Amino acid sequence: MKVYGDLLSGNCYKVKLLLEFLGIEHEWLHINVLKAESHTPEFLQMNPNGKIPVLVLDDGRVLMESNAILGYLAEESKFIPTDRYAKAKMYEWMFFEQYSHEPFIAVARFINKYLGLPKARIDEYHALQPKGHKALAIMEQALGRHDYLVGNELTLADISLYAYTHVADEGGFDLSLYPNIQAWCQRIQNYPAYKSMAV
Amino acid sequence: MKVYGDLLSGNCYKVKLLLEFLGIEHEWLHINVLKAESHTPEFLQMNPNGKIPVLVLDDGRVLMESNAILGYLAEESKFIPTDRYAKAKMYEWMFFEQYSHEPFIAVARFINKYLGLPKARIDEYHALQPKGHKALAIMEQALGRHDYLVGNELTLADISLYAYTHVADEGGFDLSLYPNIQAWCQRIQNYPAYKSMAV
Ligand SMILES: N[C@@H](CCC(=O)N[C@@H](CS)C(=O)NCC(=O)O)C(=O)O
Ligand SMILES: N[C@@H](CCC(=O)N[C@@H](CS)C(=O)NCC(=O)O)C(=O)O
Repeated sequence: MKVYGDLLSGNCYKVKLLLEFLGIEHEWLHINVLKAESHTPEFLQMNPNGKIPVLVLDDGRVLMESNAILGYLAEESKFIPTDRYAKAKMYEWMFFEQYSHEPFIAVARFINKYLGLPKARIDEYHALQPKGHKALAIMEQALGRHDYLVGNELTLADISLYAYTHVADEGGFDLSLYPNIQAWCQRIQNYPAYKSMAV
Repeated sequence: MKVYGDLLSGNCYKVKLLLEFLGIEHEWLHINVLKAESHTPEFLQMNPNGKIPVLVLDDGRVLMESNAILGYLAEESKFIPTDRYAKAKMYEWMFFEQYSHEPFIAVARFINKYLGLPKARIDEYHALQPKGHKALAIMEQALGRHDYLVGNELTLADISLYAYTHVADEGGFDLSLYPNIQAWCQRIQNYPAYKSMAV
């Protein structure tokens, strides 16, 4: 299979991390969104939304949306709970990630790290801070109850939320305020198959 | 089971619609977010994110995130494809809904319908228009290929996206530009168990 993505993007990195954890062979094709490489006619034919990551199966079928890709790849693996309620809690965290975490933490990181905190976006950057901290506080509370987001086993919820959380400091979020999150990051990094967000 | 929600919110209405389609008995408890009823200490204990809908099972266990609630309720039903790729496409549309559709269409509707298009938010409202139209155009294209978003059977993807799409005009989006979407809305409304976004 092929993945179109950029390893420094959390949405893409989460797919890479799962591929490593599952030991799935794949080809990684780098896409630079700042150079509009996700908006060429060829790319838009694959994903009309013009976004990475995109998974292309060997038979040419295409899948978008990082968290849907995780669900596809991990089907029948230990990273998806079999219990109905636990599985729903896993998806609850993954929808939380896309709605209440990524839009604040990933965007603050983008403005700071990629754009160099330009004057034109400094108000937006500051407005994102309390929203990102709210998401981190919700995670911190849950991680005080168990080792991973859905009980005591690693699931896709952890892989999904780890991606932007572990680099939240690049968006101005001080993770030392969140000891449970820090311990959880360490737990994930201790997995033998762990690969860091490479350069 | 109990659901805390507001039927005029698409995120809540999608849960109601599925409950009707599945014929599941439930108690509906109205929450007015404009009166901050989702931010009382009792509510925040249930959902620290302060958002509706919230599903409470008979044993007291709680589930948040509208699309995760849909997944829980529809488990083993015909609304979730059994084929691995089709199921992943269903989730792809549901993540698309939360990331590339709801934040534009639901928010424009909120600013227009609930807040009465106040001067302070008119720039934001206008900025949301092209983004919402982009999401609608992506749906329109897919619905030209088959009757429902994931092939020719109704899935959770349709229920999820129908919620805010069918009232997109309340956010300033002219649906007559999208004949495939209009035919799809009609198809959903033709289901005998269909219930409109009631007052
Ligand atoms: N909901 C999508 C979000 C993907 C996304 O926003 N990708 C960014 C890079 S991190 C992108 O491709 N941006 C380019 C664009 O939107 O034009 C997912 O989870 O895959
Ligand atoms: N991602 C959530 C979004 C829910 C949401 O934003 N709900 C709104 C009403 S439509 C709400 O409760 N807003 C009150 C608040 O955020 O304080 C879901 O799909 O359930």
